Amino acid sequence: MITTARVELQTQGNAHILNITRSVADEVRQSGINSGIVTVFCPGATGGVTTIEFEEGAVRDFRRLFDEIAAPDRAYAHNALAGDGNGHSHVRAALLGPSLTVPFVDGKLILGTWQEIIFVDFDNRPRQRSIVLQIMGE
Amino acid sequence: MITTARVELQTQGNAHILNITRSVADEVRQSGINSGIVTVFCPGATGGVTTIEFEEGAVRDFRRLFDEIAAPDRAYAHNALAGDGNGHSHVRAALLGPSLTVPFVDGKLILGTWQEIIFVDFDNRPRQRSIVLQIMGE
Amino acid sequence: MITTARVELQTQGNAHILNITRSVADEVRQSGINSGIVTVFCPGATGGVTTIEFEEGAVRDFRRLFDEIAAPDRAYAHNALAGDGNGHSHVRAALLGPSLTVPFVDGKLILGTWQEIIFVDFDNRPRQRSIVLQIMGE
Repeated sequence: MITTARVELQTQGNAHILNITRSVADEVRQSGINSGIVTVFCPGATGGVTTIEFEEGAVRDFRRLFDEIAAPDRAYAHNALAGDGNGHSHVRAALLGPSLTVPFVDGKLILGTWQEIIFVDFDNRPRQRSIVLQIMGE
Repeated sequence: MITTARVELQTQGNAHILNITRSVADEVRQSGINSGIVTVFCPGATGGVTTIEFEEGAVRDFRRLFDEIAAPDRAYAHNALAGDGNGHSHVRAALLGPSLTVPFVDGKLILGTWQEIIFVDFDNRPRQRSIVLQIMGE
Repeated sequence: MITTARVELQTQGNAHILNITRSVADEVRQSGINSGIVTVFCPGATGGVTTIEFEEGAVRDFRRLFDEIAAPDRAYAHNALAGDGNGHSHVRAALLGPSLTVPFVDGKLILGTWQEIIFVDFDNRPRQRSIVLQIMGE
C-alpha cells in the first residue's frame, strides 16, 4: 500500500528550522498502513530534512554549524551568475540532503525519545513549502 | 513483504564507529525477501548512519572531520541550556543523518567491494543502541 | 512491484558532479510503476548522491565546500596506510552519503522546479560508475 501526503509549511527562511514530527506521525497513523517506511522529501533545492533533539540550544548550534561551513556573506559563484543571493542556501541544502526515511511499526514512527523530524529552510527569504510524505508498507 | 529487525550494539560513544554490514546482510538474507531495500535507522538524536571503506585510516580521518567542524570542547548553546555536555554530538548527528537506504537483489546487499555500512555513535558516553532495519520488497 | 535499473556513468573523478535526473526519470517512467519511491544508490566508497540546482555557479560552490572541509592536499591517515592518495575522497563520500530516496506519483518524480539529482564522484581519478536505482511501488 502507498499513500502520498503533504505537510504545508510557512517558513521564515534563513535556516529556519521547523519540527514536523507531529504532522508526519499523524499522516502515518491516518494512512491505515500498519508497518513500513515514510520517505520525507523536500521538493526544492534550498531545503533539507533530518532529525535532531528539538531543544532551543541544539537548534541554535545546528544553525551555527552552517553559518561556519557555508557563511551567507562570502562570495559565491551562484550569486555572481544567478544573482539571487542564496548561494549559501544551495550548498547547505545539497550537503544536508532533501530526503529522510523513517520506519514505522503498528502505525507508530520508530524514533528516539528526544528525536524529532525537522525541515530546514535554507533559502534567504520566507517560503511556502509543501513537504512530501510517501508512506509505503502493508 | 516487510520484516523489522534490530542490530543491538554496545558502543564506546565519542564518535565510536562500528561496522554493521555483516549484521545487516544477515538480516536481509534471513528475511527471505528476494529483492528490495533495507532502511537502516538510528532511533536516537546522537547517532548517524552512512557507508565508508572500513579501514583504520579512513575511519580516523572521518572522526577528525567531525572534530574539526564540530569540536567537542567549544561552547554550545545546548550545553548551556541542557547541561549534558553533548552539544557537539547533536549537531554532528543531525548533519550526518539517522537513515540510510541500501538496495538488495537476490537476497544480497548491493555494495561496492570496499563499502561497509557504519553506525557512528556521536554521544559523549558509552551507549546501548538498537539500530532498526526495515526490510521491504518481494 | 520492484524494478532494479542502472545508470552507467563515465566520470572524471575529483568531485566531478553529474546530473542524472533525466536517467532516473526515464527509468521510473519505463518501470510502469505508478506511485512509489526510487532509491538512488552509489555502490562504492568514494561517491555520493544528493540534489542541487544544477547551475554552474552552485555546482562550483558545492565543490569548494568540500575543498574547504576536506582538502585533498593535507595529511590523511588513509593515505599513510592505504597509499592510494584518496583519503579526502573517503571522508567526503561518507559525509554526503551514498543513498537518496525520491518519491514519484503518476510515473513522475516529485522534484522542485530547479532541483536536479546529482552523483558526485569524489575519487581522485576517472571512474566507470554504475548507479543503482531500486524502484518500488504499485
